[in-house]
Amino acid sequence: MVDHTVTTRVADGLEPVSPERAAAEIPDDATLVLSGFGRAGYPKAVPLALAESGRDLSLTVISGGSVGDEVDTALVEADAVARRFPFQATAAARSAINEGRVAFHDRHISRLGDEVAFGHYGTPDVALVEAVAVGDDWLVPTTSIGHTPTYVASAERLVVEVNHAQPLSLQHLHDVYDRGMPPTRPPIPLSNPGERIGSPHIAFDPDKLLAVVETDRPDAPYSFREPTAVDRRIADNLVSFLARELEESPTFEEALNLQFGVGSLGNALMGAFADADFGDRVVSYYGEVIQDGLLDMLDAGRLENASAASLALSAEGQRRLFADLEGYAERVVVRNADVSNNPTLIDRFGVVGVNSALEVDLYGHVNSTHLGGTHVVNGIGGSGDFTRTSTLSVIALGSTAKNGTIPRIVPMVPHVDHTEHDVNVVVTEQGVADLRGCSPRERAARLVDHCAHPDYRADLNAYLDRAAEGSGNVPHDLDTAFDWQRG
Amino acid sequence: MVDHTVTTRVADGLEPVSPERAAAEIPDDATLVLSGFGRAGYPKAVPLALAESGRDLSLTVISGGSVGDEVDTALVEADAVARRFPFQATAAARSAINEGRVAFHDRHISRLGDEVAFGHYGTPDVALVEAVAVGDDWLVPTTSIGHTPTYVASAERLVVEVNHAQPLSLQHLHDVYDRGMPPTRPPIPLSNPGERIGSPHIAFDPDKLLAVVETDRPDAPYSFREPTAVDRRIADNLVSFLARELEESPTFEEALNLQFGVGSLGNALMGAFADADFGDRVVSYYGEVIQDGLLDMLDAGRLENASAASLALSAEGQRRLFADLEGYAERVVVRNADVSNNPTLIDRFGVVGVNSALEVDLYGHVNSTHLGGTHVVNGIGGSGDFTRTSTLSVIALGSTAKNGTIPRIVPMVPHVDHTEHDVNVVVTEQGVADLRGCSPRERAARLVDHCAHPDYRADLNAYLDRAAEGSGNVPHDLDTAFDWQRG
Repeated sequence: MVDHTVTTRVADGLEPVSPERAAAEIPDDATLVLSGFGRAGYPKAVPLALAESGRDLSLTVISGGSVGDEVDTALVEADAVARRFPFQATAAARSAINEGRVAFHDRHISRLGDEVAFGHYGTPDVALVEAVAVGDDWLVPTTSIGHTPTYVASAERLVVEVNHAQPLSLQHLHDVYDRGMPPTRPPIPLSNPGERIGSPHIAFDPDKLLAVVETDRPDAPYSFREPTAVDRRIADNLVSFLARELEESPTFEEALNLQFGVGSLGNALMGAFADADFGDRVVSYYGEVIQDGLLDMLDAGRLENASAASLALSAEGQRRLFADLEGYAERVVVRNADVSNNPTLIDRFGVVGVNSALEVDLYGHVNSTHLGGTHVVNGIGGSGDFTRTSTLSVIALGSTAKNGTIPRIVPMVPHVDHTEHDVNVVVTEQGVADLRGCSPRERAARLVDHCAHPDYRADLNAYLDRAAEGSGNVPHDLDTAFDWQRG
Repeated sequence: MVDHTVTTRVADGLEPVSPERAAAEIPDDATLVLSGFGRAGYPKAVPLALAESGRDLSLTVISGGSVGDEVDTALVEADAVARRFPFQATAAARSAINEGRVAFHDRHISRLGDEVAFGHYGTPDVALVEAVAVGDDWLVPTTSIGHTPTYVASAERLVVEVNHAQPLSLQHLHDVYDRGMPPTRPPIPLSNPGERIGSPHIAFDPDKLLAVVETDRPDAPYSFREPTAVDRRIADNLVSFLARELEESPTFEEALNLQFGVGSLGNALMGAFADADFGDRVVSYYGEVIQDGLLDMLDAGRLENASAASLALSAEGQRRLFADLEGYAERVVVRNADVSNNPTLIDRFGVVGVNSALEVDLYGHVNSTHLGGTHVVNGIGGSGDFTRTSTLSVIALGSTAKNGTIPRIVPMVPHVDHTEHDVNVVVTEQGVADLRGCSPRERAARLVDHCAHPDYRADLNAYLDRAAEGSGNVPHDLDTAFDWQRG
């Protein structure tokens, strides 16, 4: 293990091989654990070599979070993936999963490292990890840390892809921390989002090292859509609500620790927050990915620190960050996902968590993952980690989809990712429903009046009338609860 | 604040008043925060005086967990309760809530203290707290701690009921710990379930003290039904599964920290564990209530320590415990509920959490609270705290209810308290479905084959066939998903 700045990509004595040669060492039915999170820092050359090998592969592929097309398009289209966990974000993977060709389950990010370490997916055969540099018994990750430390420790063998397109200076952002294991796992000694408590390196047993590969293929950049009028109205409603909350709640008097979910809406909300005025309090980000909108907040001086497991940036965002990595490193920390998303830290820092969803029902149950209750879009990711434990948990979404033809405040969601017990506040472009301290009937009234699109309010109230005939704490009419989803 | 053993019930200078006189000080529309958890340690005399006052009351009543008939029958039947959080367990309260006469929402126990402290229910007017002893600025709780420390700190005024029927020696069990507040809440420095890190006393601002009342009315004892044949088969299946797990998993090599849900099944499982052999490892309990079955395990030498927020015992269990309180205090710790149920401690101790449910669906979503999706039974309590964060989270239930006429493994649950992302293992009297590392389709197959009652397997498979026509990662047929619940 080195304890100083790394200046050499591949340490003396290590002999890189071709991606094809490394791929040839991987068994046909291997369980692979991959670096990569928020479509950043994932291995590229060896997955492509596997996809192009012509072999009859039946791989289990476990990444930290989402990864790029080299894995979730090329490998899937080569029919090489039998099982996939815990998240994906490509059309090819989505189709294969929804058609039942790939076995998939989406898992809470904060728990996933433990699940792999505890053997829920068997013993991983090979960890495939992208690095900016590698030595005999250490590597430095690239644009994400995700679950890589746990994966490297859990797998039998290790293949390292040293990526020359990723700046060596990324090491200044990293904070790799070992949480230890139950039943003697110690408390995490992190006292604020900007602190570092670990190392820039991931240590490994040198006997595990199967191959080192070199590449210069950059992360596929994130593409965020331009904020829509609806996005902007959601952001306005959220900022106004939060301003009132900050005025009233002593919890946020000195510091405000924010989290925004991954994606275009989250990114748009971050961008809007760059113009918001939160007074003298220290504002930090404690979330799972750094997106472009956060760079805006950092550059605007609105953000003291930002902590996440990954740098999920657009091409322009990458250029901005890479141009001044050492400068950003004073305020940006990249961590393991089991620290970035850790419930105890979300609780201790009093995080305001803002996550998006597909649809919300009249009582505040949230579907984040499965369209129509059946077809997975991406996966739950960290939305459960933050929604469940945040001091203030907010769900933000448009009140309709597809040009107003599909309502997103519905009688009952056909898939529940976050329950009524977890969700405090719902924000749409129509307004804000503050559900705290409310009974189910009161929650329904607020969601209809403040969040639902006016075109659908009469139908929602008619549903509530039918439901009320059967009484109950959570009135429902099971005969018609799914009428909208059933079309 | 005293720092030694308390020997006097009511400190010199405090003048107890009658319950009626104390009750008269409480406003008609007060928000009351009550001690009490697991039907133990709740105030009795003042609620009864309020119920019998003949006043037109419209109270908000927030307890730590369940409380007895003095609150949830007498006050409810006097039509004095307008709002009730976060749990109840009486027929009177259940009816009033399900008929919409009392506004109710069930909340996660681990989060509830913060919700009250952060003002989700407004500022509480009066904390009504049962104590074994009281001084100018301190009190010692009785058979539960629950959220009492937070409630005392949050309320404007304080009424203390000193209960002479509760032994003074209960103080030796207590560990009152102040978690502090976000954003600078420190880590909880608890390194094992048996450790004490706080004090036996709850401190308060003497200006808050509105009245001291004396009573000698014991806690209503818990009544557990005798274990049924089904309970015993569930226990056998769970013990066999766990024995295999302990053999295979290094996580549990040195210590096993167990939690069982509250109720007759949980109590029966604990009793069965008194006869189980877990080898040389240290076995402790880290849960939310101490029930009779745990005393059996302690007395049988099967349990090193037991940690909980409450002593939910039968009359016989109370006699056993009270007969040797100082002896039990060496191994039994009663804590605040935000420590007993804290996600970070459940995670750090690697808890095996076993909780019951009303029904489980084919993909592992769990309904713990609302019959038919509409009518609340008790509330979520701590089942979400433990199911979500346990290293191994188990749901245990009979495969049918009402003499086999109602299946409890169903196509889709009409109310979700715990999602597919949280549940690892389901146990019924039929067998064990280990869902770890499985896709939704695989989960369904295991639940049908190993957990469903044989009488319902053909119908469940027919449902899966219909669902498969529509494809998707989580196949469903929304037209018939609720056919069983719609009856």
